[in-house]
Amino acid sequence: MSLDWLSAPCAQPDAGLAESARARQLQLTKPPGSLGALEAVAIQLASLQRATRPTVDRVWISVFAADHGVAEEGVSAFPQAVTGEMVRNFATGGAAISVLARSLGAKLDVVNLGTVNDPGDIAGVRRAIIAPSTANFCQGPAMTQAQLEAALSVGAQSVRAAKESGTQLFIGGEMGIANTTAAAALASALLEEPPSCLAGAGTGLNAAGIQHKVHVLERALVAHETAKQPLEQLRCLGGFEIAALVGAYIAAAQAGIPVLVDGFITTTAALVAVGIQPDLRPWLLFAHRSKEHGHARLLTALNADPLIDLGLRLGEASGAAAAVPLLRLACALHNGMATFEQAGVSNA
Amino acid sequence: MSLDWLSAPCAQPDAGLAESARARQLQLTKPPGSLGALEAVAIQLASLQRATRPTVDRVWISVFAADHGVAEEGVSAFPQAVTGEMVRNFATGGAAISVLARSLGAKLDVVNLGTVNDPGDIAGVRRAIIAPSTANFCQGPAMTQAQLEAALSVGAQSVRAAKESGTQLFIGGEMGIANTTAAAALASALLEEPPSCLAGAGTGLNAAGIQHKVHVLERALVAHETAKQPLEQLRCLGGFEIAALVGAYIAAAQAGIPVLVDGFITTTAALVAVGIQPDLRPWLLFAHRSKEHGHARLLTALNADPLIDLGLRLGEASGAAAAVPLLRLACALHNGMATFEQAGVSNA
Repeated sequence: MSLDWLSAPCAQPDAGLAESARARQLQLTKPPGSLGALEAVAIQLASLQRATRPTVDRVWISVFAADHGVAEEGVSAFPQAVTGEMVRNFATGGAAISVLARSLGAKLDVVNLGTVNDPGDIAGVRRAIIAPSTANFCQGPAMTQAQLEAALSVGAQSVRAAKESGTQLFIGGEMGIANTTAAAALASALLEEPPSCLAGAGTGLNAAGIQHKVHVLERALVAHETAKQPLEQLRCLGGFEIAALVGAYIAAAQAGIPVLVDGFITTTAALVAVGIQPDLRPWLLFAHRSKEHGHARLLTALNADPLIDLGLRLGEASGAAAAVPLLRLACALHNGMATFEQAGVSNA
Repeated sequence: MSLDWLSAPCAQPDAGLAESARARQLQLTKPPGSLGALEAVAIQLASLQRATRPTVDRVWISVFAADHGVAEEGVSAFPQAVTGEMVRNFATGGAAISVLARSLGAKLDVVNLGTVNDPGDIAGVRRAIIAPSTANFCQGPAMTQAQLEAALSVGAQSVRAAKESGTQLFIGGEMGIANTTAAAALASALLEEPPSCLAGAGTGLNAAGIQHKVHVLERALVAHETAKQPLEQLRCLGGFEIAALVGAYIAAAQAGIPVLVDGFITTTAALVAVGIQPDLRPWLLFAHRSKEHGHARLLTALNADPLIDLGLRLGEASGAAAAVPLLRLACALHNGMATFEQAGVSNA
């Protein structure tokens, strides 16, 4: 396997179609700008989809699951067995993202990259096992180079399948006990900020638990202080599911599929991906502001202004899924409203 | 006509069902509280609908349109003819709320309470004409007592029709050139705050236009400074469509139908309604934070924390309609997720 594919160019948004969409918004029967972010989203989607009438009927949600060696440091409120248990729950329809995907009529692609508690073959789950978990990054790199390359590729494979099914919007999600710790480590390294700025409660740590998590992160950052490039930081501090998200985001931008980014962990993956491929940034829409402590900092770093802020902190792509109806309504308004001329309504 | 009906008691939310819903949320396969406001909404709807499994499949949207005498003071960026023109646009499907209602599968009830530019009989519009417009409240009360009573009753009639059709959520919207001026006047009087705190750009005034609007409001407040009760303030400073919204909100709470409040003008109506009937407050959910200047102040006064903040400032119920999918997803999650026990997932 090679990483050459990561540097293939991203698709180009169409500036002309963005301009036409902006002009159309000014002709629709409403005061200019009065639909706020819904106007901006429609204009961005027109440009990315190269369409005068953008739509997000066909939505693809990939949830990447994997376990983390750093879980042995006691950084999560839940036992590690939950990762494998939740893979089954995703597939059998009981998880939040299962319900949301069903409600949205979205395709749910569940990908198991390796869990300590292996749920085995399950209908509706793609097995892409790299190892039962990453290594504990307090003691060494989370991944070997081969594991990193494999995990990036797993993400790209999901995007290829999404592309073949005519997907108009790609959403990535994740599940992995201790993965807010991995994401915080990676974000600290990428942004060169102290772990206390990025570490949060995850699934529900109390103040003492967060303090312990910060100490674990400080040890990890010292252990990997020589890692300076995003890919190497991802290898040393990331997780299989985070690498899969990075690969998926890059592949989606290369394939010309708009991406809706979810919460803290996926935004960390987006930061890595943009570090590798700056041209990827226009392809990212941001769904929500997570309650997880470090998310606001990541959004600022990416100059991102998400659509919703509902105090969500679940992951699984749940925040992105919750924002999909707003994208759909933004398109419906852009495509379906009458102009002043059509409706015989006086303009200002 | 009489106003006795306004004091009939509101329906009682079911505290026991709220408690069961809260307990259920703790059993669903997610960290407790991780679905944030979506959990709170499901719990509130369970309590209001007296249902273990709340749903908002059947949504009713009433848009009340009316003209305002104060428009002659030059307080709007759009000509007064637009009110009547937009009534037609609502009914023929080209307005934002028409597109949104269609997308949501919601019933759209368009009610004309009186426009200077009368569009006449239009299929899909209920004619409930009170007068071509209110009086200019800089010179006298906006409405007579009989007009106030009629307008309140028009709102209640819409709720009766909504109830008969099995509505699970009532949304009120409005259209009326100069009605941000009326709403700001009313809000200033209700909250005893200067007009500059409540007056905004409306459909698109510049700074000088807003300054002029503030001066107009100052004159109006002096003219009606003896009006101290909400109903009398509504009569002196409101509009037919604002009074219809007040009547609708009270009737909905009496009928046990949850209400989703839209933006600046509808929140002013909610403030009047709660002033008349404090027991109404639990029946109100708040959809969005409008970009219109005074809305934040009104939300604070009602201790309301809306679901979305997208820079919307259109009215017509558009912000409330945009939030409906979030309510639906909140219900789907509450009703459809597996518990830890059902899914065999380990708890914290």
